[in-house]
Amino acid sequence: MTIVRDMAEKTDHNILATRAGRKVYEAVAAEVTGAEYHDIARFIIIRRGSQEKRGCIVVLSAGTSDMPVAEEAALTAEAMGNRVERVYDVGVAGIHRLFNYRNKLLAARVLIAVAGMEGALPSVVAGLVDKPVIAVPTSVGYGASFGGLAALLAMLNSCASGVSVVNIDNGFGAGYQAALINSLGDSPV
Amino acid sequence: MTIVRDMAEKTDHNILATRAGRKVYEAVAAEVTGAEYHDIARFIIIRRGSQEKRGCIVVLSAGTSDMPVAEEAALTAEAMGNRVERVYDVGVAGIHRLFNYRNKLLAARVLIAVAGMEGALPSVVAGLVDKPVIAVPTSVGYGASFGGLAALLAMLNSCASGVSVVNIDNGFGAGYQAALINSLGDSPV
Amino acid sequence: MTIVRDMAEKTDHNILATRAGRKVYEAVAAEVTGAEYHDIARFIIIRRGSQEKRGCIVVLSAGTSDMPVAEEAALTAEAMGNRVERVYDVGVAGIHRLFNYRNKLLAARVLIAVAGMEGALPSVVAGLVDKPVIAVPTSVGYGASFGGLAALLAMLNSCASGVSVVNIDNGFGAGYQAALINSLGDSPV
Amino acid sequence: MTIVRDMAEKTDHNILATRAGRKVYEAVAAEVTGAEYHDIARFIIIRRGSQEKRGCIVVLSAGTSDMPVAEEAALTAEAMGNRVERVYDVGVAGIHRLFNYRNKLLAARVLIAVAGMEGALPSVVAGLVDKPVIAVPTSVGYGASFGGLAALLAMLNSCASGVSVVNIDNGFGAGYQAALINSLGDSPV
Amino acid sequence: MTIVRDMAEKTDHNILATRAGRKVYEAVAAEVTGAEYHDIARFIIIRRGSQEKRGCIVVLSAGTSDMPVAEEAALTAEAMGNRVERVYDVGVAGIHRLFNYRNKLLAARVLIAVAGMEGALPSVVAGLVDKPVIAVPTSVGYGASFGGLAALLAMLNSCASGVSVVNIDNGFGAGYQAALINSLGDSPV
Amino acid sequence: MTIVRDMAEKTDHNILATRAGRKVYEAVAAEVTGAEYHDIARFIIIRRGSQEKRGCIVVLSAGTSDMPVAEEAALTAEAMGNRVERVYDVGVAGIHRLFNYRNKLLAARVLIAVAGMEGALPSVVAGLVDKPVIAVPTSVGYGASFGGLAALLAMLNSCASGVSVVNIDNGFGAGYQAALINSLGDSPV
Amino acid sequence: MTIVRDMAEKTDHNILATRAGRKVYEAVAAEVTGAEYHDIARFIIIRRGSQEKRGCIVVLSAGTSDMPVAEEAALTAEAMGNRVERVYDVGVAGIHRLFNYRNKLLAARVLIAVAGMEGALPSVVAGLVDKPVIAVPTSVGYGASFGGLAALLAMLNSCASGVSVVNIDNGFGAGYQAALINSLGDSPV
Amino acid sequence: MTIVRDMAEKTDHNILATRAGRKVYEAVAAEVTGAEYHDIARFIIIRRGSQEKRGCIVVLSAGTSDMPVAEEAALTAEAMGNRVERVYDVGVAGIHRLFNYRNKLLAARVLIAVAGMEGALPSVVAGLVDKPVIAVPTSVGYGASFGGLAALLAMLNSCASGVSVVNIDNGFGAGYQAALINSLGDSPV
Repeated sequence: MTIVRDMAEKTDHNILATRAGRKVYEAVAAEVTGAEYHDIARFIIIRRGSQEKRGCIVVLSAGTSDMPVAEEAALTAEAMGNRVERVYDVGVAGIHRLFNYRNKLLAARVLIAVAGMEGALPSVVAGLVDKPVIAVPTSVGYGASFGGLAALLAMLNSCASGVSVVNIDNGFGAGYQAALINSLGDSPV
Repeated sequence: MTIVRDMAEKTDHNILATRAGRKVYEAVAAEVTGAEYHDIARFIIIRRGSQEKRGCIVVLSAGTSDMPVAEEAALTAEAMGNRVERVYDVGVAGIHRLFNYRNKLLAARVLIAVAGMEGALPSVVAGLVDKPVIAVPTSVGYGASFGGLAALLAMLNSCASGVSVVNIDNGFGAGYQAALINSLGDSPV
Repeated sequence: MTIVRDMAEKTDHNILATRAGRKVYEAVAAEVTGAEYHDIARFIIIRRGSQEKRGCIVVLSAGTSDMPVAEEAALTAEAMGNRVERVYDVGVAGIHRLFNYRNKLLAARVLIAVAGMEGALPSVVAGLVDKPVIAVPTSVGYGASFGGLAALLAMLNSCASGVSVVNIDNGFGAGYQAALINSLGDSPV
Repeated sequence: MTIVRDMAEKTDHNILATRAGRKVYEAVAAEVTGAEYHDIARFIIIRRGSQEKRGCIVVLSAGTSDMPVAEEAALTAEAMGNRVERVYDVGVAGIHRLFNYRNKLLAARVLIAVAGMEGALPSVVAGLVDKPVIAVPTSVGYGASFGGLAALLAMLNSCASGVSVVNIDNGFGAGYQAALINSLGDSPV
Repeated sequence: MTIVRDMAEKTDHNILATRAGRKVYEAVAAEVTGAEYHDIARFIIIRRGSQEKRGCIVVLSAGTSDMPVAEEAALTAEAMGNRVERVYDVGVAGIHRLFNYRNKLLAARVLIAVAGMEGALPSVVAGLVDKPVIAVPTSVGYGASFGGLAALLAMLNSCASGVSVVNIDNGFGAGYQAALINSLGDSPV
Repeated sequence: MTIVRDMAEKTDHNILATRAGRKVYEAVAAEVTGAEYHDIARFIIIRRGSQEKRGCIVVLSAGTSDMPVAEEAALTAEAMGNRVERVYDVGVAGIHRLFNYRNKLLAARVLIAVAGMEGALPSVVAGLVDKPVIAVPTSVGYGASFGGLAALLAMLNSCASGVSVVNIDNGFGAGYQAALINSLGDSPV
Repeated sequence: MTIVRDMAEKTDHNILATRAGRKVYEAVAAEVTGAEYHDIARFIIIRRGSQEKRGCIVVLSAGTSDMPVAEEAALTAEAMGNRVERVYDVGVAGIHRLFNYRNKLLAARVLIAVAGMEGALPSVVAGLVDKPVIAVPTSVGYGASFGGLAALLAMLNSCASGVSVVNIDNGFGAGYQAALINSLGDSPV
Repeated sequence: MTIVRDMAEKTDHNILATRAGRKVYEAVAAEVTGAEYHDIARFIIIRRGSQEKRGCIVVLSAGTSDMPVAEEAALTAEAMGNRVERVYDVGVAGIHRLFNYRNKLLAARVLIAVAGMEGALPSVVAGLVDKPVIAVPTSVGYGASFGGLAALLAMLNSCASGVSVVNIDNGFGAGYQAALINSLGDSPV
């Protein structure tokens, strides 16, 4: 479990806790008012004041098993004041599913592509848009996936330009980075 | 260099030599009539009699740098009596290029997908057809491609069904396997 | 667990679920009529109508510990309408056992060779036949087998032509690929 | 060598060629007017029309040996219309050197941190700013650096939030990603 | 668990047992008078007579999760007759925290720097002092930390001079080595 | 290059030098009478007196490319006073070739099995005899052979009893070990 | 667990079962008379008739934690009719302990050296004797021992001649190989 | 090549340049008076004033091939004002050679143990003395030494207390660390 104290100190945004079991949530909820719990992502948010939403971050996941990591990314970005669209279960083995969302992808300012196994989703996504894509390998897979290593290496070797990568299963890191990127529109160019 | 003696002994097909430099070719050509040399694939063929062509094997490559391996596969399959269609430079970062060839893919009996870097092409191809796909990782790439390891692991972890994999840069092995598969139509089911 | 939904959508074949515990089976059986459960392979089949059987796929395993993966392959191929012969416990350390089945091997249209430890079985098998061999490394072994990596690397480096490889323990993938290959006899060459 | 054709097709920006030796440059220069060559980065630029410069990208490098990769990143970002500040030779073993540039870092919109060996620079930089940091591991080092693997793993495991990583020695990829990020200020939030 | 018999035989110092659960402690305490237990480090000390304290060893840790290993190092050094200062939670992502302790670092005769994840702390520390730094990688992290491998490689590739490294999580080894070094002041130069 | 001084000191046997280029040989031959050079194995022998030959060591190699290592093993064993039979080019992909030599294998007292690629030969050989088999992986192969790692792992995981392994390409070590074993018949049991 | 059926079929020796828990033993003991159980090695022996003992095999272990593997080797060799001497807890960090047994080592016909961690024992032993040494790496260690990989690599790279290696924790394999070697004295040279 | 500028800035000691070819030396010698060149270590020293020598550092090497790295360590320590004793070619396969120097080892204040292949020397040395041992793995070896990885892992897993490790082939780092340690006698305890 990672307590996201640092972020809370640096910003006025909400406070997040990732990889938190329900018991941790209950302990937090006993002391703090308004803590929310998200089961799939094992994620706690304590919202502090309302925020204007910034333009859209799209979070994609290849398979349903990648959803906990994708949700961690999505919830992190939302908690930092971003509007988030989820496009899940659009792995490259059924690429028509991804194409049904092409307009959503083109409307995004930043994209997060989450995939285990062969980790090909970020390459395909980055080929369709000209916005920054944050790739998140997951430990979904078995055998020669070696705990997410296969997906990690694939993403680092993406033949598409505009992809950068975070650690295996690091949904929080991707959401945080995407939020930093998306907030650039606020400051003068 | 691998002299493909075994194949020559077992079958009435042509004789092949892979990874052969021009000097090797010249030495062969000095002794055998009708030896042909293919530069990109560094490949020698000695044709022995005409052959009926079997139904189509499609060889795809992700990038132009993968062409030597793709040509090794294509020439091997052709030398073993198969009709081969080449669909090159259709990597997943520009996936529309692949889709322009959709009809060709659907008409294939067997497909060989050759890719380095993130090695995603076989997964996408196998999602579009319901024919066997032989995946060939290449050592094209640098840094964390680790000599083709990234592409190899990606292909072994393909989320698409119907993919099997040969060694890194083993175009000959893929062409040979595809030819064996394609010849099944000759024998009674 | 992998629900084999995709396959069910694409074909009229039976529905399969691999890596399914007995509890999952019981949940399925409560809702669907006629679901069968196979203990060793942890495999559920829901048969949909009768099918003509296609010519023979032979599934070989090196040791008895490789049987769950071999059965997953065999049951997958059967469920997709293929006649399957099992030749188990024929590892290369007692190679005479394999030779007792030589006629069966020669009669096969496609072969699946399943082995852990040093993963040598596919090389020997591919040397005896000129049909496609799908090699399946298993995680059977300890120490320097590194969870099946030793067998996987051995199979990728097979000195025999006509071998392609699927992921460690991926019996389903091998069965599916073999079924695709075997169905080629149905279509015009 | 990678010819950056794709980028040229997609944008009105300049044309770049990375990993180009002087001979390649001379061949290009013989055919195209105005091609420039950058020795350290082995980089060709063909400028097409003037461009307004976008707000600042800071490129940092840990050691002087990392400069070719850092220059590749810097030249790529410049060629895509960005103002770039270089802060070189500020490795963490002499951290006061980095601190001398603190104001430059705080003024950046995006940062690229290039380092070989232990790859610690991006973590320290990301701790000082709250802007996105693109980390580039280099193959500078020997022995247990394993061709840049040590730096790559360190960057993926950064304890600082806001870091994402590209392939070993992929200065082009970092510059491209930073340019995409920096251009977000142009579009409506 | 490692019973530190050897050390006890060679020296008049206290007896230590590392990686000892509370149950082991209780078994020891039932037989030996005066055994102490340290929970976080899972460490037993049986003190034998008083000792003059030697000049200061500083033990630093990057994160709070690294504390068990850091405490193992600190308690080992203390048990061998050294004065130990603890400087915990001073990871490089918030480098100002480390700088608050600069005077303590400069006063040390030997330093032990404990860190997981990207393992950058020893490099920064060794850049600030000209005393020997013993680096201890920890298995803190996930995904591409590969059980502490990322931190280990980073420390071996430190760009700062004056760093040597012990095994992952080997707090005892670092404390022992630091104590040997610190005792050199006792013998004639 | 390894000068086998140690062996010369310990025994009355011949003096060997492995991995010696022709130039080294010529330098040696200029000073010592009777030095012999073996091209394929890059091996120098200086014979010192005649020796009775001990009962037979059989050296097998899988492919012709493994011959330099096999010859290094054979020449080492011969130089240490053993009768050696060579059985080369009997890889498992054409297992009938191996079986043609079954009587020779059964007559051996010790066997050395040399193989690259998938390294399966020792397992098959050890299944046919009940004498000790020394396995020598070679660096013959490409791609996922990783410089002989695939063969090494395969041999360490042999499913046959009676196999032990030496370093990749270490023909000398295998010949030396086999000679030690074979000399046991001389001493009282 | 490995049932050593093969050995039982091939020889008149005793029947062994390695990696057998007490429950397995109890099941066996219920059916077979005279089965013995060895706790530390988790080893069952069913003795079949008396046997003359062959000359001595010495089994050495570096640490007490290596004893289960060492005992598996010793019991295997004993069960195959060999006299076995055990020399345990003689790791290289206290090398005088090993030297106390020098006469025993010199009297051995074959030696088995079992060690985890840095795996240095076989090299030292092989330097003291001129008999074959079978090295057994164990998975004893933590962190950068990577489950015995460190010891395995060390043994494969032994600077001493006369060492061959079996799989990590493979006490049975070492005992079996040593027994094969020791039995050579029985057959004519 | 590493120019040791940093060290020169921090101390009044001599200036060193490691991994310097003769040409670099000649360039240096043309500009600076009194630069010395050491061939084996490829090492330049520019001495600046005389220095009192501190008590003894012993540098040991396992084989003659390890001498360049050992010399780099020895020359570095000497250049930093230490008396250095060299004990070379004392690898563990002939351990009596090491024991001939026992008195020298016992008289040392700090020891540097340099070894390739199985890297066992530091463990044996640390068992003989109770002074700090700096272990230096070298890339000497082939096959499964994987460029010094085997020796590195062995040293990190040393069963002897009092060993810490630097990067593969990093003689400079070991000499520098040993000099820092040895200088502790100068400062008050």
